[in-house]
Amino acid sequence: MPREVRERQMLDAAVAGFARHGYQAASMDDIAEEAGVSKPLVYLYLKSKEDLFTACIRRERAALVEAVRGGTGADRADGDGPRAGGVPGSGGSGAEQQLWRGLCAFFAHTAARPEGWSVLHRAHTQGEPFAREVAGLRAEITELVTLLLGRAAVDAGCDEEFAEREVSGLAHAMVGAAESLAVWANSRTDAVPSPKETAATLMNFCWTGLGQMIKGARWSPHR
Amino acid sequence: MPREVRERQMLDAAVAGFARHGYQAASMDDIAEEAGVSKPLVYLYLKSKEDLFTACIRRERAALVEAVRGGTGADRADGDGPRAGGVPGSGGSGAEQQLWRGLCAFFAHTAARPEGWSVLHRAHTQGEPFAREVAGLRAEITELVTLLLGRAAVDAGCDEEFAEREVSGLAHAMVGAAESLAVWANSRTDAVPSPKETAATLMNFCWTGLGQMIKGARWSPHR
Repeated sequence: MPREVRERQMLDAAVAGFARHGYQAASMDDIAEEAGVSKPLVYLYLKSKEDLFTACIRRERAALVEAVRGGTGADRADGDGPRAGGVPGSGGSGAEQQLWRGLCAFFAHTAARPEGWSVLHRAHTQGEPFAREVAGLRAEITELVTLLLGRAAVDAGCDEEFAEREVSGLAHAMVGAAESLAVWANSRTDAVPSPKETAATLMNFCWTGLGQMIKGARWSPHR
Repeated sequence: MPREVRERQMLDAAVAGFARHGYQAASMDDIAEEAGVSKPLVYLYLKSKEDLFTACIRRERAALVEAVRGGTGADRADGDGPRAGGVPGSGGSGAEQQLWRGLCAFFAHTAARPEGWSVLHRAHTQGEPFAREVAGLRAEITELVTLLLGRAAVDAGCDEEFAEREVSGLAHAMVGAAESLAVWANSRTDAVPSPKETAATLMNFCWTGLGQMIKGARWSPHR
Protein backbone atom coordinates (compact mmCIF):
# COMPACT_ATOMS: atom_id res chain seq x y z
CA MET A 1 0.00 0.00 0.00
CA PRO A 2 1.48 3.40 -0.96
CA ARG A 3 2.71 5.53 1.92
CA GLU A 4 0.25 8.38 1.26
CA VAL A 5 -2.76 6.04 1.40
CA ARG A 6 -1.51 4.61 4.67
CA GLU A 7 -0.86 8.06 6.09
CA ARG A 8 -4.31 9.17 5.10
CA GLN A 9 -5.83 6.18 6.90
CA MET A 10 -3.83 7.01 10.01
CA LEU A 11 -4.91 10.64 9.92
CA ASP A 12 -8.56 9.63 9.37
CA ALA A 13 -8.37 7.36 12.41
CA ALA A 14 -6.53 10.00 14.45
CA VAL A 15 -9.05 12.77 13.64
CA ALA A 16 -11.87 10.43 14.67
CA GLY A 17 -10.04 9.44 17.88
CA PHE A 18 -9.09 12.98 18.88
CA ALA A 19 -12.60 14.25 18.13
CA ARG A 20 -14.16 11.49 20.22
CA HIS A 21 -11.85 11.46 23.24
CA GLY A 22 -9.89 14.73 23.13
CA TYR A 23 -6.15 15.07 22.70
CA GLN A 24 -5.11 13.86 26.15
CA ALA A 25 -7.42 10.86 26.40
CA ALA A 26 -7.13 9.57 22.82
CA SER A 27 -5.03 6.42 22.71
CA MET A 28 -2.35 5.70 20.13
CA ASP A 29 -3.26 2.00 20.39
CA ASP A 30 -6.86 2.70 19.40
CA ILE A 31 -5.81 5.00 16.58
CA ALA A 32 -3.42 2.37 15.18
CA GLU A 33 -6.09 -0.32 15.46
CA GLU A 34 -8.72 1.85 13.80
CA ALA A 35 -6.26 2.62 10.98
CA GLY A 36 -5.52 -1.11 10.64
CA VAL A 37 -1.78 -0.68 11.19
CA SER A 38 0.67 -1.42 14.01
CA LYS A 39 1.49 1.23 16.61
CA PRO A 40 5.21 1.27 15.69
CA LEU A 41 4.20 2.13 12.13
CA VAL A 42 2.19 5.14 13.37
CA TYR A 43 5.25 6.33 15.31
CA LEU A 44 7.49 5.64 12.31
CA TYR A 45 5.34 7.80 10.05
CA LEU A 46 4.17 10.50 12.45
CA LYS A 47 6.93 10.50 15.13
CA SER A 48 4.85 11.30 18.26
CA LYS A 49 1.33 11.92 19.49
CA GLU A 50 2.06 15.66 19.32
CA ASP A 51 3.23 15.39 15.70
CA LEU A 52 0.20 13.26 14.84
CA PHE A 53 -2.16 15.83 16.37
CA THR A 54 -0.34 18.64 14.56
CA ALA A 55 -0.64 16.74 11.28
CA CYS A 56 -4.41 16.34 11.90
CA ILE A 57 -4.84 20.05 12.59
CA ARG A 58 -2.82 21.02 9.50
CA ARG A 59 -4.77 18.68 7.24
CA GLU A 60 -8.16 19.83 8.56
CA ARG A 61 -7.07 23.47 8.42
CA ALA A 62 -5.98 23.12 4.77
CA ALA A 63 -9.20 21.29 3.85
CA LEU A 64 -11.37 23.97 5.50
CA VAL A 65 -9.51 26.86 3.88
CA GLU A 66 -9.65 25.11 0.49
CA ALA A 67 -13.40 24.55 0.86
CA VAL A 68 -14.08 28.17 1.81
CA ARG A 69 -11.77 29.65 -0.83
CA GLY A 70 -13.26 27.28 -3.37
CA GLY A 71 -16.74 28.42 -2.34
CA THR A 72 -15.88 32.07 -2.77
CA GLY A 73 -14.05 31.40 -6.01
CA ALA A 74 -11.14 33.33 -4.43
CA ASP A 75 -8.60 31.05 -6.04
CA ARG A 76 -9.99 31.64 -9.50
CA ALA A 77 -10.82 35.26 -8.92
CA ASP A 78 -7.69 36.87 -7.51
CA GLY A 79 -8.53 40.20 -9.04
CA ASP A 80 -9.98 38.85 -12.27
CA GLY A 81 -12.93 36.81 -11.02
CA PRO A 82 -16.55 37.84 -10.56
CA ARG A 83 -16.55 41.23 -8.90
CA ALA A 84 -18.55 44.40 -9.31
CA GLY A 85 -21.55 43.86 -11.49
CA GLY A 86 -22.45 40.61 -9.87
CA VAL A 87 -23.13 37.11 -10.98
CA PRO A 88 -25.56 36.99 -13.93
CA GLY A 89 -29.08 36.07 -12.85
CA SER A 90 -28.51 36.65 -9.15
CA GLY A 91 -28.81 39.65 -6.89
CA GLY A 92 -26.06 41.53 -5.16
CA SER A 93 -22.54 42.32 -6.19
CA GLY A 94 -19.96 39.71 -7.01
CA ALA A 95 -18.30 40.06 -3.63
CA GLU A 96 -21.63 39.68 -1.79
CA GLN A 97 -22.28 36.47 -3.74
CA GLN A 98 -18.76 35.27 -3.05
CA LEU A 99 -19.31 35.82 0.65
CA TRP A 100 -22.61 33.94 0.56
CA ARG A 101 -21.08 31.00 -1.29
CA GLY A 102 -18.09 31.07 1.06
CA LEU A 103 -20.40 30.85 4.07
CA CYS A 104 -22.39 28.02 2.47
CA ALA A 105 -19.12 26.18 1.78
CA PHE A 106 -17.95 26.77 5.36
CA PHE A 107 -21.11 25.41 6.97
CA ALA A 108 -21.33 22.54 4.45
CA HIS A 109 -17.75 21.57 5.21
CA THR A 110 -18.09 21.76 9.01
CA ALA A 111 -21.35 19.77 8.80
CA ALA A 112 -19.86 17.12 6.50
CA ARG A 113 -16.69 16.78 8.58
CA PRO A 114 -17.88 17.25 12.16
CA GLU A 115 -14.87 15.37 13.53
CA GLY A 116 -12.40 17.54 11.65
CA TRP A 117 -14.23 20.67 12.77
CA SER A 118 -14.31 19.44 16.34
CA VAL A 119 -10.54 18.86 16.28
CA LEU A 120 -9.95 22.34 14.84
CA HIS A 121 -12.36 24.08 17.15
CA ARG A 122 -11.02 22.41 20.28
CA ALA A 123 -7.32 22.30 19.36
CA HIS A 124 -6.58 25.63 21.07
CA THR A 125 -7.65 24.13 24.39
CA GLN A 126 -4.56 21.90 24.19
CA GLY A 127 -2.11 24.78 24.50
CA GLU A 128 0.75 25.75 22.23
CA PRO A 129 1.78 24.99 19.53
CA PHE A 130 -1.74 23.83 18.58
CA ALA A 131 -3.36 27.12 19.58
CA ARG A 132 -0.98 28.90 17.20
CA GLU A 133 -2.08 26.72 14.25
CA VAL A 134 -5.71 27.57 14.91
CA ALA A 135 -4.95 31.27 15.35
CA GLY A 136 -3.28 31.12 11.93
CA LEU A 137 -6.42 29.55 10.46
CA ARG A 138 -8.61 32.25 11.96
CA ALA A 139 -6.31 34.98 10.65
CA GLU A 140 -6.38 33.47 7.17
CA ILE A 141 -10.19 33.31 7.07
CA THR A 142 -10.54 36.78 8.60
CA GLU A 143 -8.27 38.23 5.90
CA LEU A 144 -10.45 36.66 3.19
CA VAL A 145 -13.68 37.94 4.81
CA THR A 146 -12.17 41.43 5.25
CA LEU A 147 -11.30 41.50 1.56
CA LEU A 148 -14.79 40.38 0.49
CA LEU A 149 -16.66 42.69 2.88
CA GLY A 150 -14.51 45.63 1.72
CA ARG A 151 -15.16 44.85 -1.95
CA ALA A 152 -18.86 44.32 -1.31
CA ALA A 153 -19.10 47.65 0.49
CA VAL A 154 -17.32 49.47 -2.34
CA ASP A 155 -19.44 47.62 -4.95
CA ALA A 156 -22.53 48.83 -3.08
CA GLY A 157 -21.36 52.40 -3.53
CA CYS A 158 -19.95 52.82 -0.08
CA ASP A 159 -17.10 55.30 0.26
CA GLU A 160 -13.60 53.97 0.79
CA GLU A 161 -13.35 55.64 4.18
CA PHE A 162 -16.24 53.58 5.56
CA ALA A 163 -14.69 50.44 4.17
CA GLU A 164 -11.34 51.31 5.80
CA ARG A 165 -12.85 52.21 9.15
CA GLU A 166 -15.58 49.64 9.67
CA VAL A 167 -14.75 46.58 7.66
CA SER A 168 -12.00 45.15 9.85
CA GLY A 169 -14.23 45.08 12.94
CA LEU A 170 -17.14 43.67 10.97
CA ALA A 171 -14.97 40.90 9.55
CA HIS A 172 -13.86 39.89 13.05
CA ALA A 173 -17.48 39.93 14.19
CA MET A 174 -18.57 37.78 11.25
CA VAL A 175 -15.81 35.20 11.69
CA GLY A 176 -16.53 34.91 15.42
CA ALA A 177 -20.23 34.55 14.66
CA ALA A 178 -19.62 31.88 12.00
CA GLU A 179 -17.38 29.86 14.27
CA SER A 180 -19.91 29.99 17.06
CA LEU A 181 -22.78 29.05 14.72
CA ALA A 182 -20.91 26.05 13.30
CA VAL A 183 -20.41 24.68 16.82
CA TRP A 184 -24.06 25.32 17.60
CA ALA A 185 -25.31 23.68 14.38
CA ASN A 186 -23.17 20.57 14.93
CA SER A 187 -24.32 20.27 18.55
CA ARG A 188 -28.00 20.07 17.60
CA THR A 189 -29.71 16.73 17.77
CA ASP A 190 -33.15 17.74 16.52
CA ALA A 191 -34.19 20.28 13.91
CA VAL A 192 -30.62 20.25 12.60
CA PRO A 193 -30.37 23.19 10.18
CA SER A 194 -28.96 22.56 6.72
CA PRO A 195 -25.68 24.32 5.88
CA LYS A 196 -27.60 26.73 3.64
CA GLU A 197 -30.04 27.50 6.46
CA THR A 198 -27.18 28.26 8.84
CA ALA A 199 -25.47 30.42 6.20
CA ALA A 200 -28.77 32.22 5.61
CA THR A 201 -29.15 32.83 9.35
CA LEU A 202 -25.80 34.61 9.35
CA MET A 203 -26.51 36.52 6.14
CA ASN A 204 -29.91 37.56 7.49
CA PHE A 205 -28.44 38.62 10.77
CA CYS A 206 -25.38 40.40 9.47
CA TRP A 207 -25.67 41.17 5.83
CA THR A 208 -28.97 42.94 6.06
CA GLY A 209 -27.36 45.02 8.79
CA LEU A 210 -24.33 45.75 6.64
CA GLY A 211 -26.60 46.70 3.75
CA GLN A 212 -28.33 49.25 5.99
CA MET A 213 -24.99 50.56 7.25
CA ILE A 214 -23.72 51.13 3.73
CA LYS A 215 -26.84 53.15 3.03
CA GLY A 216 -25.91 55.27 6.04
CA ALA A 217 -28.49 53.86 8.46
CA ARG A 218 -27.23 53.44 11.99
CA TRP A 219 -28.74 51.72 14.96
CA SER A 220 -29.32 54.21 17.72
CA PRO A 221 -30.36 53.86 21.32
CA HIS A 222 -32.45 57.03 20.89
CA ARG A 223 -34.57 56.86 17.80
CA MET B 1 -3.59 43.60 56.64
CA PRO B 2 -6.88 41.66 56.37
CA ARG B 3 -6.74 38.42 54.44
CA GLU B 4 -9.15 39.51 51.73
CA VAL B 5 -7.10 42.62 50.93
CA ARG B 6 -3.95 40.52 50.67
CA GLU B 7 -5.70 37.96 48.51
CA ARG B 8 -6.99 40.68 46.23
CA GLN B 9 -3.44 42.03 45.82
CA MET B 10 -2.20 38.54 44.97
CA LEU B 11 -4.95 38.03 42.41
CA ASP B 12 -4.30 41.47 40.88
CA ALA B 13 -0.62 40.62 40.52
CA ALA B 14 -1.43 37.14 39.19
CA VAL B 15 -3.89 38.40 36.56
CA ALA B 16 -1.27 40.90 35.39
CA GLY B 17 1.45 38.23 35.32
CA PHE B 18 -0.67 35.62 33.53
CA ALA B 19 -1.89 38.18 31.00
CA ARG B 20 1.66 39.34 30.28
CA HIS B 21 3.47 36.01 30.11
CA GLY B 22 0.80 33.32 29.71
CA TYR B 23 0.03 30.57 32.20
CA GLN B 24 3.11 28.44 31.58
CA ALA B 25 5.70 31.20 31.55
CA ALA B 26 4.34 33.35 34.38
CA SER B 27 6.55 33.01 37.45
CA MET B 28 5.25 32.63 41.00
CA ASP B 29 8.31 34.59 42.21
CA ASP B 30 7.36 37.57 40.06
CA ILE B 31 3.71 37.36 41.10
CA ALA B 32 4.66 37.30 44.80
CA GLU B 33 7.07 40.21 44.34
CA GLU B 34 4.50 42.24 42.42
CA ALA B 35 1.95 41.56 45.16
CA GLY B 36 4.50 42.60 47.80
CA VAL B 37 4.28 39.29 49.67
CA SER B 38 6.49 36.24 50.09
CA LYS B 39 6.10 33.26 47.77
CA PRO B 40 5.25 30.88 50.66
CA LEU B 41 2.37 33.19 51.55
CA VAL B 42 1.01 32.92 47.99
CA TYR B 43 1.16 29.12 48.26
CA LEU B 44 -0.39 29.27 51.73
CA TYR B 45 -3.37 31.25 50.44
CA LEU B 46 -3.78 29.84 46.94
CA LYS B 47 -2.22 26.33 47.25
CA SER B 48 -0.69 25.97 43.75
CA LYS B 49 -0.14 27.78 40.47
CA GLU B 50 -3.12 25.90 39.05
CA ASP B 51 -5.34 27.00 41.95
CA LEU B 52 -4.08 30.55 41.60
CA PHE B 53 -4.91 30.57 37.87
CA THR B 54 -8.32 29.05 38.56
CA ALA B 55 -8.97 31.74 41.19
CA CYS B 56 -8.03 34.43 38.63
CA ILE B 57 -10.38 32.98 36.01
CA ARG B 58 -13.24 32.71 38.51
CA ARG B 59 -12.80 36.26 39.75
CA GLU B 60 -12.61 37.69 36.22
CA ARG B 61 -15.55 35.55 35.09
CA ALA B 62 -17.69 36.76 37.99
CA ALA B 63 -16.68 40.40 37.38
CA LEU B 64 -17.52 40.17 33.67
CA VAL B 65 -20.88 38.50 34.25
CA GLU B 66 -21.73 41.05 36.95
CA ALA B 67 -20.82 43.92 34.62
CA VAL B 68 -22.93 42.55 31.76
CA ARG B 69 -25.90 41.62 33.94
CA GLY B 70 -25.65 45.00 35.64
CA GLY B 71 -25.63 46.67 32.22
CA THR B 72 -28.73 44.85 31.08
CA GLY B 73 -30.40 45.41 34.43
CA ALA B 74 -31.07 41.67 34.43
CA ASP B 75 -30.50 41.47 38.18
CA ARG B 76 -33.06 44.15 38.90
CA ALA B 77 -35.42 43.12 36.15
CA ASP B 78 -35.97 39.39 36.54
CA GLY B 79 -39.44 39.59 35.10
CA ASP B 80 -40.36 42.94 36.66
CA GLY B 81 -37.83 45.28 35.09
CA PRO B 82 -38.07 47.40 31.95
CA ARG B 83 -39.59 45.22 29.26
CA ALA B 84 -42.15 45.75 26.57
CA GLY B 85 -42.92 49.41 26.12
CA GLY B 86 -39.31 50.41 26.34
CA VAL B 87 -37.26 52.85 28.33
CA PRO B 88 -38.87 56.31 28.48
CA GLY B 89 -37.29 58.73 26.05
CA SER B 90 -35.46 56.10 24.05
CA GLY B 91 -36.33 53.95 21.05
CA GLY B 92 -36.86 50.25 20.89
CA SER B 93 -38.32 47.83 23.33
CA GLY B 94 -37.02 47.29 26.83
CA ALA B 95 -35.24 44.12 25.83
CA GLU B 96 -33.55 45.84 22.88
CA GLN B 97 -32.31 48.57 25.19
CA GLN B 98 -31.16 45.98 27.71
CA LEU B 99 -29.17 44.25 25.02
CA TRP B 100 -27.60 47.53 23.93
CA ARG B 101 -26.63 48.45 27.48
CA GLY B 102 -25.36 44.93 28.08
CA LEU B 103 -23.11 45.17 25.01
CA CYS B 104 -21.85 48.60 26.11
CA ALA B 105 -21.10 47.18 29.56
CA PHE B 106 -19.34 44.19 28.04
CA PHE B 107 -17.04 46.26 25.82
CA ALA B 108 -16.46 48.85 28.58
CA HIS B 109 -15.46 46.08 30.98
CA THR B 110 -13.15 44.29 28.55
CA ALA B 111 -11.55 47.64 27.59
CA ALA B 112 -11.12 48.71 31.24
CA ARG B 113 -9.71 45.34 32.29
CA PRO B 114 -7.69 44.21 29.31
CA GLU B 115 -5.55 41.90 31.46
CA GLY B 116 -8.58 40.19 32.97
CA TRP B 117 -10.13 39.79 29.52
CA SER B 118 -6.87 38.44 28.14
CA VAL B 119 -6.73 35.84 30.92
CA LEU B 120 -10.35 34.81 30.26
CA HIS B 121 -10.03 34.77 26.51
CA ARG B 122 -6.83 32.76 26.52
CA ALA B 123 -7.57 30.47 29.46
CA HIS B 124 -9.05 27.74 27.26
CA THR B 125 -5.70 27.38 25.50
CA GLN B 126 -4.33 26.00 28.77
CA GLY B 127 -6.46 22.86 28.67
CA GLU B 128 -8.83 21.49 31.29
CA PRO B 129 -10.08 22.44 33.85
CA PHE B 130 -9.59 26.05 32.70
CA ALA B 131 -11.34 25.50 29.37
CA ARG B 132 -14.39 24.26 31.30
CA GLU B 133 -14.56 27.47 33.36
CA VAL B 134 -14.55 29.56 30.20
CA ALA B 135 -17.13 27.34 28.50
CA GLY B 136 -19.33 27.93 31.55
CA LEU B 137 -18.89 31.68 31.17
CA ARG B 138 -19.85 31.53 27.50
CA ALA B 139 -22.91 29.42 28.29
CA GLU B 140 -24.00 31.89 30.97
CA ILE B 141 -23.70 34.89 28.65
CA THR B 142 -25.35 33.03 25.77
CA GLU B 143 -28.31 32.18 27.98
CA LEU B 144 -28.74 35.85 28.88
CA VAL B 145 -28.47 36.97 25.23
CA THR B 146 -30.94 34.26 24.14
CA LEU B 147 -33.43 35.53 26.72
CA LEU B 148 -33.05 39.16 25.64
CA LEU B 149 -33.16 38.44 21.90
CA GLY B 150 -36.26 36.30 22.41
CA ARG B 151 -38.00 39.02 24.43
CA ALA B 152 -36.95 41.69 21.95
CA ALA B 153 -38.32 39.65 19.05
CA VAL B 154 -41.64 39.11 20.83
CA ASP B 155 -41.77 42.79 21.88
CA ALA B 156 -41.30 43.71 18.21
CA GLY B 157 -44.40 41.69 17.35
CA CYS B 158 -42.60 38.64 16.14
CA ASP B 159 -44.42 35.36 16.49
CA GLU B 160 -43.28 32.91 19.15
CA GLU B 161 -42.41 30.32 16.53
CA PHE B 162 -39.77 32.59 14.99
CA ALA B 163 -38.35 33.31 18.40
CA GLU B 164 -38.17 29.60 19.19
CA ARG B 165 -36.61 28.64 15.89
CA GLU B 166 -34.15 31.41 15.17
CA VAL B 167 -33.17 33.00 18.43
CA SER B 168 -30.83 30.32 19.71
CA GLY B 169 -28.65 30.42 16.60
CA LEU B 170 -28.66 34.22 16.57
CA ALA B 171 -27.61 34.35 20.21
CA HIS B 172 -24.65 32.07 19.51
CA ALA B 173 -23.71 34.20 16.52
CA MET B 174 -23.90 37.39 18.58
CA VAL B 175 -21.82 36.03 21.47
CA GLY B 176 -19.16 34.74 19.07
CA ALA B 177 -19.13 38.10 17.31
CA ALA B 178 -18.85 40.04 20.58
CA GLU B 179 -15.97 37.91 21.82
CA SER B 180 -14.13 38.32 18.56
CA LEU B 181 -14.73 42.09 18.52
CA ALA B 182 -13.46 42.55 22.09
CA VAL B 183 -10.18 40.85 21.17
CA TRP B 184 -9.95 42.98 18.04
CA ALA B 185 -10.70 46.24 19.90
CA ASN B 186 -8.10 45.50 22.59
CA SER B 187 -5.47 44.60 19.99
CA ARG B 188 -5.68 47.97 18.24
CA THR B 189 -2.93 50.46 18.82
CA ASP B 190 -4.28 53.34 16.75
CA ALA B 191 -7.84 54.53 16.20
CA VAL B 192 -8.88 52.52 19.25
CA PRO B 193 -12.70 52.46 19.22
CA SER B 194 -14.54 53.47 22.39
CA PRO B 195 -16.63 50.73 24.04
CA LYS B 196 -19.78 52.45 22.78
CA GLU B 197 -18.41 52.54 19.24
CA THR B 198 -17.64 48.83 19.37
CA ALA B 199 -21.08 48.08 20.80
CA ALA B 200 -22.64 50.22 18.06
CA THR B 201 -20.67 48.31 15.42
CA LEU B 202 -22.23 45.10 16.64
CA MET B 203 -25.72 46.58 16.96
CA ASN B 204 -25.41 48.08 13.47
CA PHE B 205 -24.20 44.84 12.04
CA CYS B 206 -26.60 42.51 13.79
CA TRP B 207 -29.51 44.35 15.23
CA THR B 208 -30.50 46.08 12.04
CA GLY B 209 -30.44 42.65 10.46
CA LEU B 210 -32.56 41.18 13.22
CA GLY B 211 -35.00 44.07 12.87
CA GLN B 212 -35.41 43.25 9.19
CA MET B 213 -35.82 39.56 9.95
CA ILE B 214 -38.58 40.21 12.44
CA LYS B 215 -40.40 42.18 9.76
CA GLY B 216 -40.13 39.10 7.56
CA ALA B 217 -37.34 40.32 5.29
CA ARG B 218 -34.80 37.67 4.36
CA TRP B 219 -31.51 37.95 2.64
CA SER B 220 -31.61 36.03 -0.60
CA PRO B 221 -28.94 35.07 -3.09
CA HIS B 222 -31.48 35.72 -5.86
CA ARG B 223 -33.24 38.98 -5.38
